[in-house]
Amino acid sequence: MFRKLFAPTIEVQAHCDLPCGVYDPAQARIEAESIKGIISKAADNDDPDFRTRAIIIKEQRAELVKHHLWVLWTDYFKAPHFEKYPQLHTLFNEATKLAGASGVKGALDADVADQLLAKIDEIAEIFWETKKG
Amino acid sequence: MFRKLFAPTIEVQAHCDLPCGVYDPAQARIEAESIKGIISKAADNDDPDFRTRAIIIKEQRAELVKHHLWVLWTDYFKAPHFEKYPQLHTLFNEATKLAGASGVKGALDADVADQLLAKIDEIAEIFWETKKG
Amino acid sequence: MFRKLFAPTIEVQAHCDLPCGVYDPAQARIEAESIKGIISKAADNDDPDFRTRAIIIKEQRAELVKHHLWVLWTDYFKAPHFEKYPQLHTLFNEATKLAGASGVKGALDADVADQLLAKIDEIAEIFWETKKG
Amino acid sequence: MFRKLFAPTIEVQAHCDLPCGVYDPAQARIEAESIKGIISKAADNDDPDFRTRAIIIKEQRAELVKHHLWVLWTDYFKAPHFEKYPQLHTLFNEATKLAGASGVKGALDADVADQLLAKIDEIAEIFWETKKG
Amino acid sequence: MFRKLFAPTIEVQAHCDLPCGVYDPAQARIEAESIKGIISKAADNDDPDFRTRAIIIKEQRAELVKHHLWVLWTDYFKAPHFEKYPQLHTLFNEATKLAGASGVKGALDADVADQLLAKIDEIAEIFWETKKG
Amino acid sequence: MFRKLFAPTIEVQAHCDLPCGVYDPAQARIEAESIKGIISKAADNDDPDFRTRAIIIKEQRAELVKHHLWVLWTDYFKAPHFEKYPQLHTLFNEATKLAGASGVKGALDADVADQLLAKIDEIAEIFWETKKG
Repeated sequence: MFRKLFAPTIEVQAHCDLPCGVYDPAQARIEAESIKGIISKAADNDDPDFRTRAIIIKEQRAELVKHHLWVLWTDYFKAPHFEKYPQLHTLFNEATKLAGASGVKGALDADVADQLLAKIDEIAEIFWETKKG
Repeated sequence: MFRKLFAPTIEVQAHCDLPCGVYDPAQARIEAESIKGIISKAADNDDPDFRTRAIIIKEQRAELVKHHLWVLWTDYFKAPHFEKYPQLHTLFNEATKLAGASGVKGALDADVADQLLAKIDEIAEIFWETKKG
Repeated sequence: MFRKLFAPTIEVQAHCDLPCGVYDPAQARIEAESIKGIISKAADNDDPDFRTRAIIIKEQRAELVKHHLWVLWTDYFKAPHFEKYPQLHTLFNEATKLAGASGVKGALDADVADQLLAKIDEIAEIFWETKKG
Repeated sequence: MFRKLFAPTIEVQAHCDLPCGVYDPAQARIEAESIKGIISKAADNDDPDFRTRAIIIKEQRAELVKHHLWVLWTDYFKAPHFEKYPQLHTLFNEATKLAGASGVKGALDADVADQLLAKIDEIAEIFWETKKG
Repeated sequence: MFRKLFAPTIEVQAHCDLPCGVYDPAQARIEAESIKGIISKAADNDDPDFRTRAIIIKEQRAELVKHHLWVLWTDYFKAPHFEKYPQLHTLFNEATKLAGASGVKGALDADVADQLLAKIDEIAEIFWETKKG
Repeated sequence: MFRKLFAPTIEVQAHCDLPCGVYDPAQARIEAESIKGIISKAADNDDPDFRTRAIIIKEQRAELVKHHLWVLWTDYFKAPHFEKYPQLHTLFNEATKLAGASGVKGALDADVADQLLAKIDEIAEIFWETKKG
């Protein structure tokens, strides 16, 4: 797996607003995976202090998901992308809502985390299509 | 490429200190790739204000590289790993130094960015080996 | 002016993602005004260190503009708003781009700051219409 | 209301420590309004996880209130203001204490939030008087 | 020296707004020392990129000085202290101004750093007197 | 005590990654003392909201402990130090683990806080030895 991830022909993508030209939906996905892990651990643990910590950290991770998605939506995607993929605005708006109070911030619910992950994957699929073109 | 990255059998890894159990050296690598992109763009641009912005953002990204590596070193790797891989401490110390003042923070030098990326890849290789075991 | 701003019948609006139900486009506008002030001061000052500081602080303020706008777009505006105001997605996307590298982050240009302020005002006008309804 | 807020003769005020010359007590007030909203929502909700989130976010918002007030006290107000308004130091000290552990941080109490709002309004009244002069 | 600093009878003091009851003016002083070090290194170095980094980091350290001082002023000192030491408000206001745009933020000047350090020491002297009482 | 701390022959040490050359293990210790204070106050208080606040703030302070220690390990200590003190890597790794989920983050336990303080003191002892050399 390591070979695949770091083989010379595969560029890992990221972002900064210089812009450096490096973007990657994996940044949002990693944080969303973390949220799913948190929810799973909280479900297996009765300690109220642990639950408090789980909520604190979930809140931070969810904020990071929102941030990474907003960055893609504003900084990576350009007008021609939005013309070609008219669903993109709604997709990002729904994904960031799923990372917020009406989504994983507001619940310790593995299903909501899965919905968030699925939305991020939809965005990632479009992202990688645009990189091919 | 997308299929590979998000195929159901491949877990994207990350971290939070609940701990959620999700870690991934890609987080450090993405920021290091961004630094390489910044250095490349600054080399092609004469505007002093652009160079100032490049240095500001490089500073932030380098701090993120350090943070993601420190998290792996403290939170993911345990005593048995350090026994099995006695070079790990030095590897992490050198990698984080390469992300600091004596490395990419202190220079706009593509070679230093490549050295940092190579160190991160060495760490990632060990990381993925420990995940197999 | 003070009386108007703090008269008991006028609610100052803001945001947190509890959600607390308090939002206000003024948060973005205040940071954008600050950017305009920074650009104006940098234009009147030859000291290169001052210019460096101006760019550092402009970068931070621009990031805050983006953040405050993203919060409105994701957390305040709901599906019915996007149906009623089909231009909203594009408006937010353009406004946040104007706060980024292709806008005030990438330039010390009062005209770009004015364009950003005008976009924020367009958003604010819609925002206040939805509060009346 | 929008017309009033964004009419060309009314300057929205803010701050950065360039200084950009833009300040506005509304920044502190908006966060304090948010705290009041949080307290109100927590009072209507029995879910312990919601209460935990309310406390997390209240903590952050209260810190922002303190920060915005400290900025006004240090960066906007000058020696002549403190001579003309000898109560200013105490006013700011009490207002920031009301935003701290002995105030809204330490309690989910709407009355304390109202006391904080009242102090901010006292400060704002003096602020706008100094802007006229 | 170590023995003195960490001897069991000497409490190192700090702060959090629980409050934890631990405060220490050393936190502000350490950051101010750092600023003095930055200014000294920038004076010995002609590289414009180094100077840019020096200004970036000085800006952050100065903000930390302000923050640590504000915390002492609001959270540690109480009404009886302000009665006993009527100069305290002015002292803190001047110290935080020296950490801002009209002080070390606005200049690469060792004298200004020394003035800031001297003000912090004046505050520290009063602080330690109140701890004895 | 004040005289000792701020006497002209005693340098207070700190850090920034310019590097400014100013480091001090006291920064980590102060935050660890704060954690101990938090744990003690939480033990004396039955209010669940207070306990929630205690956990929120302990989480932040523990993160600061980790950060200050990581900075010393990467930025202050150099290869010759690690040769002379072969236990240093393990010491830092254990200290930062004690500041994390398996240490003070994961428990409200005064003993764990004391273990963390003891580790920081071991590091500090070595640190001050290297400063003498």
